[in-house]
Amino acid sequence: MHTLPSLLELIQGYAESHPFPQTPSELYEPCDYMLTLGGKRLRPALLLMGYEVFRDDVEQALTAAWAVELFHNFTLMHDDIMDAAPLRRGQPTVHTRWNTTTAILSGDVMLIRAYQSLTAAGRPNTVLPLLETFNRVATEVCEGQQMDVNFETRSNVGIPEYIRMIELKTAVLVGGALKMGAICAEAPDADAEHLYHFGRLAGIAFQIQDDLLDTYGDPEKFGKQVGGDILQNKKTLLVLKTLETASDADSKALQAWMQTGSENPEQKIEAVRAIFDRNNIPELIAFEKKKYQEEAFLHLEAVQAKQTRKELLKKMIENLLERES
Amino acid sequence: MHTLPSLLELIQGYAESHPFPQTPSELYEPCDYMLTLGGKRLRPALLLMGYEVFRDDVEQALTAAWAVELFHNFTLMHDDIMDAAPLRRGQPTVHTRWNTTTAILSGDVMLIRAYQSLTAAGRPNTVLPLLETFNRVATEVCEGQQMDVNFETRSNVGIPEYIRMIELKTAVLVGGALKMGAICAEAPDADAEHLYHFGRLAGIAFQIQDDLLDTYGDPEKFGKQVGGDILQNKKTLLVLKTLETASDADSKALQAWMQTGSENPEQKIEAVRAIFDRNNIPELIAFEKKKYQEEAFLHLEAVQAKQTRKELLKKMIENLLERES
Repeated sequence: MHTLPSLLELIQGYAESHPFPQTPSELYEPCDYMLTLGGKRLRPALLLMGYEVFRDDVEQALTAAWAVELFHNFTLMHDDIMDAAPLRRGQPTVHTRWNTTTAILSGDVMLIRAYQSLTAAGRPNTVLPLLETFNRVATEVCEGQQMDVNFETRSNVGIPEYIRMIELKTAVLVGGALKMGAICAEAPDADAEHLYHFGRLAGIAFQIQDDLLDTYGDPEKFGKQVGGDILQNKKTLLVLKTLETASDADSKALQAWMQTGSENPEQKIEAVRAIFDRNNIPELIAFEKKKYQEEAFLHLEAVQAKQTRKELLKKMIENLLERES
Repeated sequence: MHTLPSLLELIQGYAESHPFPQTPSELYEPCDYMLTLGGKRLRPALLLMGYEVFRDDVEQALTAAWAVELFHNFTLMHDDIMDAAPLRRGQPTVHTRWNTTTAILSGDVMLIRAYQSLTAAGRPNTVLPLLETFNRVATEVCEGQQMDVNFETRSNVGIPEYIRMIELKTAVLVGGALKMGAICAEAPDADAEHLYHFGRLAGIAFQIQDDLLDTYGDPEKFGKQVGGDILQNKKTLLVLKTLETASDADSKALQAWMQTGSENPEQKIEAVRAIFDRNNIPELIAFEKKKYQEEAFLHLEAVQAKQTRKELLKKMIENLLERES
């Protein structure tokens, strides 16, 4: 069994020994750039941990793990265009540093490269289930992104469809990575499914927590400005929960704040947070998160493998779900 | 053996029985729209013809054939954004009718859908070679598009790299479709390779002819305005050949015309055509085309199959390469 740092080292070594082609440099340089922006390599690490629940020779799963990382970076490159995001991890996004044409085409070739890696990862017994899982997850990620785009211009988004959106946009890829690890290890189907749901549900819990931390995180530990979602008038789960459960007066007050600009950011954050607070929104959201988290861990327990084999995965997800920023 | 119309009917039936999902409609409607703009379904038909060189039960190859058509339409949707093209086949392009975000995301899901179709097409013996061929071709198509983008802002494009660009951007997919048909039929590797090169070389010849017809096509038969490339100052093979072979005076005259607008389109077309004519450019280009065409048919002849089995494919490519518009 590996530690997380040693898994990350394996992934880094694999990436370095499988570079993009040199030419056309205009196509591949943005791919290299995107991959070196300092992502945490969470998804490939999860795939390897899923593999290690069943088998030791984790190097066998590196090609599939890298496919998942390539796919994730493809989605970031295209999402950044759609969101007109100038920065990613403090650096210019690809469409800002180069242009939209480049970000479209380099993203496309990165997605194809993910499939190339996945094809190379396949053994006769595993290639079809690997592809089927990957195809389904990839389709769902696009569907989730479309829902997210749709929500921006809708005023009547419900909580169930918001949860469905984060499930498709981000959580199924977490579940998919774990399941693909199990498939590479030729684990029983039932166990692969349990790992999928473990990752999917934990992914939902993680995104719920993300909404909560953006407003209630510790400013010392939180990388971004606390209250950023409030200033951007984002329809987070906190907002939707308020509109669903608060008094008419508070709902209207929140909606009024969401129509205003950010001339006085501290005042706006404080006022909106006060509405959330007096309606117990943080507690309600924390309860929502806990529900998904607990269901997630039931699936991990149901996986037929020794407790010691599941320990690293358990600890990693627990840490992610307990972080304060 | 099928006729071309009966193959097209099979493809149409397959498409109708394999629709995109209904929701999110914002994601999938543009995919349906793109596919109904009246493409000729040339590439899937070629895949089926490649299959029929070796086997009769061509229905078995429909899933792979449709994957190729989906891929082609994905490239059109994204290329139209990059080219800022308002129309395709006389109808608004996806990014014009909807917006760029839609055209990016619907294109992405169409590419994933192509892989889904390809995965479903795979048998234990064929899935890996099918994917490997498709992955390579798809990567090369992106590389060709990047070269095309690069050429727009370069003044020193050589003929060999121009040929390489059209080879990657369009010809390898023609070859790839034929090869994938052969793979589906579990034909010997050598025959699959010969079909690949047949399609690739014929694809290059076709693109060379395309450049020629844009300036010298029969206005009665040519769908677009004859001379369109001249008016758009496109660096076609005719231009590159002139710059390579003509006198300094004619090269300079051509370059001067390419710096001008199209206030007097007839005059510009006539003047540029006169430069081409007095330098025998049409003959030189026709010779270039013939070279690739002849090499292509040598590869078709080398395929180990009865002449009657290759007849439909031979006729189809001959017709495409003899058209006057």
